Amino acid sequence: MILNPETDLELVRHLRAAPSKVWRCWTEPALLEQWFAPKPVVTRDAKIDLRPGGIFSTTMDIPEMGTQTGDGCILEVVPERRLVWTDLLGPGYRPVGDAFGFTACILLEPEGSGTLYRAIAMHRTPDQRKSHEDMGFHDGWGTAAAQLDDVAAAL
Amino acid sequence: MILNPETDLELVRHLRAAPSKVWRCWTEPALLEQWFAPKPVVTRDAKIDLRPGGIFSTTMDIPEMGTQTGDGCILEVVPERRLVWTDLLGPGYRPVGDAFGFTACILLEPEGSGTLYRAIAMHRTPDQRKSHEDMGFHDGWGTAAAQLDDVAAAL
Repeated sequence: MILNPETDLELVRHLRAAPSKVWRCWTEPALLEQWFAPKPVVTRDAKIDLRPGGIFSTTMDIPEMGTQTGDGCILEVVPERRLVWTDLLGPGYRPVGDAFGFTACILLEPEGSGTLYRAIAMHRTPDQRKSHEDMGFHDGWGTAAAQLDDVAAAL
Repeated sequence: MILNPETDLELVRHLRAAPSKVWRCWTEPALLEQWFAPKPVVTRDAKIDLRPGGIFSTTMDIPEMGTQTGDGCILEVVPERRLVWTDLLGPGYRPVGDAFGFTACILLEPEGSGTLYRAIAMHRTPDQRKSHEDMGFHDGWGTAAAQLDDVAAAL
């Protein structure tokens, strides 16, 4: 996977759990809800239909900001290795009207007894990448990755 | 495939050639270039990497309007039956900065010795559907389908 530094953001972490457990945390709604958004944001009503064209949807309750639902579309599934989804399309590849506009690529590789975890967000334009960075991509996705580490390690 | 009349446009035609030949016309660049845009628009430099995540790109020379290149992304490939691609993403599912914004779903079914041909364009919003309709969706895609009919029948 070749990154474009102009439009892409990447988070890389070592997680303690093996890829099989990290994969479960990304693909089972009840587990995803436990770590997907940095607390105190609450993630609920996760819907995951794990096939290309299937839904990837979450609803987040964000204190003092309200509720935000995103219906994305899964694009690629390589069990325990690679999950690609986008918010530009919804289930059945139907274009979404008010998308923020990114594709997420989650890459898992065994690293020791744990996982080398890479979470990549690809954007439409350099400005949009910067706006995602300014919104707190590294802190937000970093905090979520720490929560993911805990949930996966407890499985 | 369930249409949403608010955001989708559909063209349905009977084509004389069998699905295998219509499929070739959609997936082989040298054939696609012969019918893809209504003449006198010229389609050239077609690039098709026939797998999910692969490129679907064309360049069109439009008289008195100039040149237009679109790098889309193939989403679903069911040989001789279904081809789905979008201009919202480019190769590798990378979001596109200046997309018109639609997903095309091409459905082929045997009908007699020919093909029942359905070409569906799904849009982000009802306004965008209307704008595509006003740009001449039915005439443009209809003329292209007649050209496709001729190219496929001659194979």
